[in-house]
Amino acid sequence: MNEKTITDERLKKQIDFLSEIDKIKNIFRQTYVSNLSRQENDAEHSWHLALMAMVLNEYANEDVDILHVIELVLIHDMVEIDAGDTYAYDPEANKTKRERELKAAERIFHLLPDDQAEWVRALWDEYEASETKEAKFALSLDILHPILMNDLGNGLAWVDHDVTEKQARDRIERVKPGSQALFDLCSQIVTDNVKEGNILPMEEENGTE
Amino acid sequence: MNEKTITDERLKKQIDFLSEIDKIKNIFRQTYVSNLSRQENDAEHSWHLALMAMVLNEYANEDVDILHVIELVLIHDMVEIDAGDTYAYDPEANKTKRERELKAAERIFHLLPDDQAEWVRALWDEYEASETKEAKFALSLDILHPILMNDLGNGLAWVDHDVTEKQARDRIERVKPGSQALFDLCSQIVTDNVKEGNILPMEEENGTE
Repeated sequence: MNEKTITDERLKKQIDFLSEIDKIKNIFRQTYVSNLSRQENDAEHSWHLALMAMVLNEYANEDVDILHVIELVLIHDMVEIDAGDTYAYDPEANKTKRERELKAAERIFHLLPDDQAEWVRALWDEYEASETKEAKFALSLDILHPILMNDLGNGLAWVDHDVTEKQARDRIERVKPGSQALFDLCSQIVTDNVKEGNILPMEEENGTE
Repeated sequence: MNEKTITDERLKKQIDFLSEIDKIKNIFRQTYVSNLSRQENDAEHSWHLALMAMVLNEYANEDVDILHVIELVLIHDMVEIDAGDTYAYDPEANKTKRERELKAAERIFHLLPDDQAEWVRALWDEYEASETKEAKFALSLDILHPILMNDLGNGLAWVDHDVTEKQARDRIERVKPGSQALFDLCSQIVTDNVKEGNILPMEEENGTE
């Protein structure tokens, strides 16, 4: 489009933002799509979380505002356009994650008109703080999703990274504040995948077997 | 996961549905992602539409329920898991589209527990009928999205298919019932891309040049 096509400054900023966030389609995660043909990206992951919010909200510990949960999951990974995906089980990368993501939030959200930039930034801050019931439930879904996908894909992403039962159990603890029922599901899936040899059992990681 | 892992029949159906719809990540559209490295898929497209609903709802002709618009766009292409993506400018494929999609809706939505299957089916029927203000606006976004993406990608998808100005102008007419403002934007983008040689002008398609 010609530079002058959008004469309305507000609409121009909105379209610039919507164009920029297309880049999230090229931020790939460690999790595979279910046919194992490739890893999934953040746009696909966020779409899946929104569907999970629609279908699974009855399992939230408290009644949640569904629109609010969906808005949180739709924007929660947007900072990864600049900051990249930080793998859950990579302690080194996680040390610098917060700083990288704060910088990204400043740049990306402020492509929007000021009022919308503040609104989306507030959504992201709420998700990160994980204190409201909606943010807690959104986090439950975000943790559950790769567990479901890995389970569906015969545990390939766990095997790729030699994930241990302790790592997996520590991680799913974060599902509890948002949903006890979905935590129970995660816990059972971890148990199954330890039995199936996709997650390293407690004994092996302690070298006591 | 072991077959017996989910003992709750309702949760099992919901997880089966959420696992099945992962396949939408492998339904590719004609539109390219913005860096032109590949075509985008339906999950990415639906995520982008939901973001557009969040950011652009002020341009709807009538006040819309945002959650409702988002739910419509999140599920609108799910039938393509079985029916495939039908390219907008392919008249032959469009003849059989409705029949293929109805069959898909029967199978896919009914993986859910009955109450949720009926709810999602009603959403899809509402989207397809395009009569409510939310469905009209969702359709506006669905038409606008590839126009924005193609414009961002130097018109490559239009060039690939020798799309003519008449085809493009006929198509964007469907943006009007949901949003006059977004129709005006589409119209200007088409004009620009005719000038830039990405869309074949009226004269050429009539062979009168």
